[in-house]
Amino acid sequence: MIQETIKKITPVKSEFAEKAQKRLDNLTKPQGSLGRLEEFAKRLVAITEETMPVLDKKVIFTFAGDHGVAEERVSAYPSEVTRQMVFNFLRGGAGINALARHAGAEVVVVDVGVNGYFGNVEGLVSKKVVSGTGNIRKGPALTRDEALRCIEIGIELANEYTKKGYKIFAAGDMGIANTTPSSAIAAVLTGRPVPEVTGRGTGIGDNALKNKVKVIEDSIDLNKPDSKDPIDVLSKIGGAEIGGIAGLIIGAATNRIPVVIDGFISTAGALIAYCIEPKTKDYIFAAHNSVEIGHKAMLEKIGLRPILDLDLRLGEGTGAALAMLMIEAGLKIYKEMATFGEAGVSKNE
Amino acid sequence: MIQETIKKITPVKSEFAEKAQKRLDNLTKPQGSLGRLEEFAKRLVAITEETMPVLDKKVIFTFAGDHGVAEERVSAYPSEVTRQMVFNFLRGGAGINALARHAGAEVVVVDVGVNGYFGNVEGLVSKKVVSGTGNIRKGPALTRDEALRCIEIGIELANEYTKKGYKIFAAGDMGIANTTPSSAIAAVLTGRPVPEVTGRGTGIGDNALKNKVKVIEDSIDLNKPDSKDPIDVLSKIGGAEIGGIAGLIIGAATNRIPVVIDGFISTAGALIAYCIEPKTKDYIFAAHNSVEIGHKAMLEKIGLRPILDLDLRLGEGTGAALAMLMIEAGLKIYKEMATFGEAGVSKNE
Repeated sequence: MIQETIKKITPVKSEFAEKAQKRLDNLTKPQGSLGRLEEFAKRLVAITEETMPVLDKKVIFTFAGDHGVAEERVSAYPSEVTRQMVFNFLRGGAGINALARHAGAEVVVVDVGVNGYFGNVEGLVSKKVVSGTGNIRKGPALTRDEALRCIEIGIELANEYTKKGYKIFAAGDMGIANTTPSSAIAAVLTGRPVPEVTGRGTGIGDNALKNKVKVIEDSIDLNKPDSKDPIDVLSKIGGAEIGGIAGLIIGAATNRIPVVIDGFISTAGALIAYCIEPKTKDYIFAAHNSVEIGHKAMLEKIGLRPILDLDLRLGEGTGAALAMLMIEAGLKIYKEMATFGEAGVSKNE
Repeated sequence: MIQETIKKITPVKSEFAEKAQKRLDNLTKPQGSLGRLEEFAKRLVAITEETMPVLDKKVIFTFAGDHGVAEERVSAYPSEVTRQMVFNFLRGGAGINALARHAGAEVVVVDVGVNGYFGNVEGLVSKKVVSGTGNIRKGPALTRDEALRCIEIGIELANEYTKKGYKIFAAGDMGIANTTPSSAIAAVLTGRPVPEVTGRGTGIGDNALKNKVKVIEDSIDLNKPDSKDPIDVLSKIGGAEIGGIAGLIIGAATNRIPVVIDGFISTAGALIAYCIEPKTKDYIFAAHNSVEIGHKAMLEKIGLRPILDLDLRLGEGTGAALAMLMIEAGLKIYKEMATFGEAGVSKNE
């Protein structure tokens, strides 16, 4: 299924971006003076291949999963918080809920790998592949089949929400300890040393950080993920929610839907998607520059420039919700501003 | 009047920020993980001295004025564009209109110094002090009395809109050639050499930039503004809209209303306000990092860190409208997120 999906992805066509640029240059402002807002508008036109794109229905997918490696004390929070936060998302009390409301976006919470069963909980999209991954210091996180299934779930959601008429997606995450697999992915797929891409996550101290680096180095040594095979990397040292995010991005690109990636974890998912199919890049907007030190290396590897820089390190999709507001701003100036002719304003000399 | 207004400005009290921090630290997220959003919430609480501030009524003031120095060919656009753009603002077709609608803010267009008379135009706030400033290469921009009157207009608007129930202000500008007086102000009040704070404005070429630097250097040599007297600086080498912006900031601080400054021109106004009364700083949010090279030096002088960095260089208040969305996001997480207790989520270990 993944191979068939990937075949459908095409790079965006420059002719659409050029058409959009022409309109932008004729709006009542000095050329280029709205900077990145103009870039966002152009990219939306190129992605959707519509002269006047619409972003009325927006959805943020928060993929949740647990991590066996949490038992190595790599996080400041206990594993049970993943499950507790899922309930918090469903009740609307988390950061992502407040910011998604602010951005006019819906939040869809997807259980891909939370430890323990929820039963029939209203609002939760149950797509559980595993009840937490294996501890990567002791063995692989997922089997190859499980990793593929996580990606497929993301693709299926992208297809479903495209059919439902959603016009822009965002990817977010929840998973205690998930900066650990994300740093491992960053190290393997960017080729940087582990200490350069490993940060404090939810806020661990110096000793815990040293331990975290060691745990990641041990995990890579033990599992020997093949850096040329992103699915092997995802299964050996990744996580279920990271796979779901990678799938969402692949599915978004197939459906020509712009997809906003949140911070560190989502970018690890995006890097998996990019290594599977580099053309996905054309459909991705990088929301923000995370406090996590490994983030920049992954964004550079994909070739993405983040939109915001607000010292965020929460995840969930919070940065993506904020970035959606900026992307929409780009579309609004493009669609709503008067041209020089319409406004009777003189052009430059 | 200005002296009396200034006396009423008090620095914000740390006890309110501390109270807000306590609440922020108890919300369902790792402490500090919402970065600058938390800072915005804290500052709003400290400025308003309200436990749960409200930002329901937002207004962006776009101060318009012309500049005699435009005849020195320092801009890519003819002077008449200021007047034409005022009509564009009033009809809702400009960048600021699209972005203010996006941010849920009203736009108030204030004529402080546009060249030529508008008569009775619906929606325009007519507070004309001059019909364009004097050419600063040949003499002062404004008399001292005119400069004072421009500041008073800003203060009066701040008082009026506070009484009307507006909860947050933003300052924007329109004035062909106004990066020239703004760079002059930046040079005099930050002490930097003119070439280091002079940029391409609406998009001039290399020769025009060289000419612009020379014009500014000549203007400072001729007028000898007293860097210890910000009102002298405003009158000798400033502009009417810059004075209006300075006044708005002083008036906002007096009324304990947060005020968002847009880009280069608004920051020149803020620098005048700050040099008149440094306590105004506590009430200012710097919207974004402008492409204009002199912007950073002014922000550093005041001690402000910009919220956004989107390569904007339009003015009008466009960056401020976008930043308002981020500031409001900070307030929303502060007010709407559940605490650990409410959500039944475990705290860190």
